Amino acid sequence: MVKHALKITREQNFPEWYQEVVARAELADNSVVRGCMVIRPYGYAIWENIKAVLDVKIKECGVQNAYFPLLIPLEFLEREAEHVEGFAKECAVVTHHRLEAGEDGSLVPAGKLEKPYIIRPTSETIIGESFSKWVQSYRDLPMKINQWANVMRWEMRTRMFLRTSEFLWQEGHNVFANADEAEEDARKMLGVYRNLMEDYLAIYGLDGQKTEDEKFPGAVATYTIEAMMQDGKALQSCTSHNLGQNFTKSSGIKFTNEDGQEQFAYSTSWGMSTRIIGALIMSHSDDDGLVLPPKIAPYKAVIIPVINNETRTDDINKYCEKLKVSLGERVLFDNSAKKTSDKKWDWIRKGVPIRIEIGAREVDENKVFFVRRDNVMDKKTLGREEFLGAYEGLLDEMHKILAERNLANLKENIIVVDDMKKIEKSFKVGTKFVSVPKEWWGNEILNKMMEEFKFSYRCMPFEMEGRVILGKSY
Amino acid sequence: MVKHALKITREQNFPEWYQEVVARAELADNSVVRGCMVIRPYGYAIWENIKAVLDVKIKECGVQNAYFPLLIPLEFLEREAEHVEGFAKECAVVTHHRLEAGEDGSLVPAGKLEKPYIIRPTSETIIGESFSKWVQSYRDLPMKINQWANVMRWEMRTRMFLRTSEFLWQEGHNVFANADEAEEDARKMLGVYRNLMEDYLAIYGLDGQKTEDEKFPGAVATYTIEAMMQDGKALQSCTSHNLGQNFTKSSGIKFTNEDGQEQFAYSTSWGMSTRIIGALIMSHSDDDGLVLPPKIAPYKAVIIPVINNETRTDDINKYCEKLKVSLGERVLFDNSAKKTSDKKWDWIRKGVPIRIEIGAREVDENKVFFVRRDNVMDKKTLGREEFLGAYEGLLDEMHKILAERNLANLKENIIVVDDMKKIEKSFKVGTKFVSVPKEWWGNEILNKMMEEFKFSYRCMPFEMEGRVILGKSY
Repeated sequence: MVKHALKITREQNFPEWYQEVVARAELADNSVVRGCMVIRPYGYAIWENIKAVLDVKIKECGVQNAYFPLLIPLEFLEREAEHVEGFAKECAVVTHHRLEAGEDGSLVPAGKLEKPYIIRPTSETIIGESFSKWVQSYRDLPMKINQWANVMRWEMRTRMFLRTSEFLWQEGHNVFANADEAEEDARKMLGVYRNLMEDYLAIYGLDGQKTEDEKFPGAVATYTIEAMMQDGKALQSCTSHNLGQNFTKSSGIKFTNEDGQEQFAYSTSWGMSTRIIGALIMSHSDDDGLVLPPKIAPYKAVIIPVINNETRTDDINKYCEKLKVSLGERVLFDNSAKKTSDKKWDWIRKGVPIRIEIGAREVDENKVFFVRRDNVMDKKTLGREEFLGAYEGLLDEMHKILAERNLANLKENIIVVDDMKKIEKSFKVGTKFVSVPKEWWGNEILNKMMEEFKFSYRCMPFEMEGRVILGKSY
Repeated sequence: MVKHALKITREQNFPEWYQEVVARAELADNSVVRGCMVIRPYGYAIWENIKAVLDVKIKECGVQNAYFPLLIPLEFLEREAEHVEGFAKECAVVTHHRLEAGEDGSLVPAGKLEKPYIIRPTSETIIGESFSKWVQSYRDLPMKINQWANVMRWEMRTRMFLRTSEFLWQEGHNVFANADEAEEDARKMLGVYRNLMEDYLAIYGLDGQKTEDEKFPGAVATYTIEAMMQDGKALQSCTSHNLGQNFTKSSGIKFTNEDGQEQFAYSTSWGMSTRIIGALIMSHSDDDGLVLPPKIAPYKAVIIPVINNETRTDDINKYCEKLKVSLGERVLFDNSAKKTSDKKWDWIRKGVPIRIEIGAREVDENKVFFVRRDNVMDKKTLGREEFLGAYEGLLDEMHKILAERNLANLKENIIVVDDMKKIEKSFKVGTKFVSVPKEWWGNEILNKMMEEFKFSYRCMPFEMEGRVILGKSY
């Protein structure tokens, strides 16, 4: 039996394996605050890297960053009927603005607000208020604004990164003069996410449109990328909504068009959150822990000194330092006091793409011993110069392999069903995506069966004309 | 009389001038949410630039970024007596987690929480909870964590950037094995802020220690940089606290030392917020609007095409485009549809360091006409190549001039008083800093007079042994 670095394997229990990966890689902790997590430095560094790439891509689309209030007046929510239905149910409500000492000395809320506020679950309404002032003429359009922020939705069952009451995200809000531009923009921003996912996260998904019941409350159309996790479940990685005039009407975003006529604008909104880190974990990691695509890994490589004879300590450390400098950014020389074998396993569990071990022999022979995280069995030694020359290629190849595996997992796990009699069987073969004719959407027998097997409508993929995908989801 | 780009001058009414600068430069709007502002793209771009520089400096100190929950349980606040006294008074309290339709169809809070939460006014207590798990042995120390986040303090009188209920900031929290290291760290992090302020924001201040009554609730010592605004008032630009063992004891942050003994750790916390943008505005701006130091300006230069004859439009635009590329990052070619004179005044009010105007003449003669924002009267024309060669130097010189002016304003407006009889006169000469012997701190006559003239103890500057500075403050 192969020994693994985690106590539990994917096959034994996927959800528990996931928790174990998160804990052992020190990505996040559960917190004392209901449903909220603490994002630890190693997990946050992944988010910073994703954010940096996405921020550049968003700005390249002519979008500007801004910041809007955390609190939203209740009456703003009330303005858009579907929206309130979708978001008002579970949210944090601020009702007081002071604390006072109670009778037993503990603190009690005081200073009751005339009108309560909610903590933003999303910011369409509060940003809409600003747009209604900023947008006056067709010359002001398109107006494209993005916000990096924390949001809150009171979740009953939470799982780190995947579903937490508070999470971090970016929410883009664009306003246009006509319906076509808004539709085009919603699809374009989905493309931005797809590029990020494929090129940086090595995650392939099915991009398509949400069915009527699954779209964003108040949207005309919602687009998404449904990625497939290693257990066959779907993870909605991001969303991009064409909101039509629904929110511009409720927020009063009007402009004078070229003919001097006043009309309501059209808007989109689009977001990606820390949830994508959950997707990243479940897409690539293995029974030894986290596996990170090199482009967003906090460290592309870690250098571990292997000191068996203390007289060589200086030599080895110097060689490691020099190597670190030669390799450039995002490389760690781990000269902490921990045992070498502990370091080795820690970095395996933390998913560092390339682990380098330098002992007296490597120094004497001017060589580099290394292991790539996508194949921990493949240990190699190269001459120092040869390794330096191969380094970037090794990282690129690792990205490519992770991407290929991910795409293969997706492709191999879609069952196509055209005969309703065969649907039950397809739900029973294990967790896979099931592709059925779009017309089946809403069929009562199908719905009942989906409920029984915990399947839901994931999306109508752009590249699968006339089909809708069913899947179990996170 | 000189005509100015703003409706009001500093001398006429400094607070109104400030609001006008903020509004006309499109930095921020007041929002419908009590005491909260909307940070507009141009204002947010300044914050992003400051953040980028500060983030690198913080990481160079071995600090790692992380993220902690927005909500804090009430009992956490109760743990540190002085802290609760300082922060519990005015804060947003979350008491419910759901909204329901009320009788009249409006939304009403429902799902009352057993224990309310407050929105973080600062995160010592919630981060302390994590430290109490993460810190076990002396080998874990020092542990240095920073968080970029929004915080909330329910303010009664608010002013954009200077005092808002919600603001953005970074809060650093470091833990050490002994008292000396904590003290050293609190001073070191203040030095990081000083470098940022001097080298990037061109703001000089008095760095020193807060007096007993003015320090952070729960701190052993609070250090600050008190900058002087153009109206002579003080602005506390940042703070760095040595918290001793006060918070490690209340949070239970213990470690096993090298002798195997368990003991409480020592901690610091240090923060800088969007308030610094208020300092930036009031330090350098003039009666024509915002003046931005080049290193943190959203655009270092703006190129405005001046088209008097439409046949030359293409020539001029091409010349501008080429110039923009030659000048590199953070340069805008403003080819919007606005009138040339409007563009010119808009960019003056927005404080862009170098305004370039390109007309047919400049194209024909291969020249560049430009004006530097620190001296709008000094219009110059240089040959294209000569201008490109001088460009970085012009920006550096502008930074230097802003810094010199700022330092001169500080130096020239400190009145030294050693005779208590002369103190009233010093309060009456206008708004200046007043330096008095440290021993006067707490003197009842002085306190009464300070209250009357709205002066407060600002700090005991490191470089003014035995003195304490009195000032009016923002």
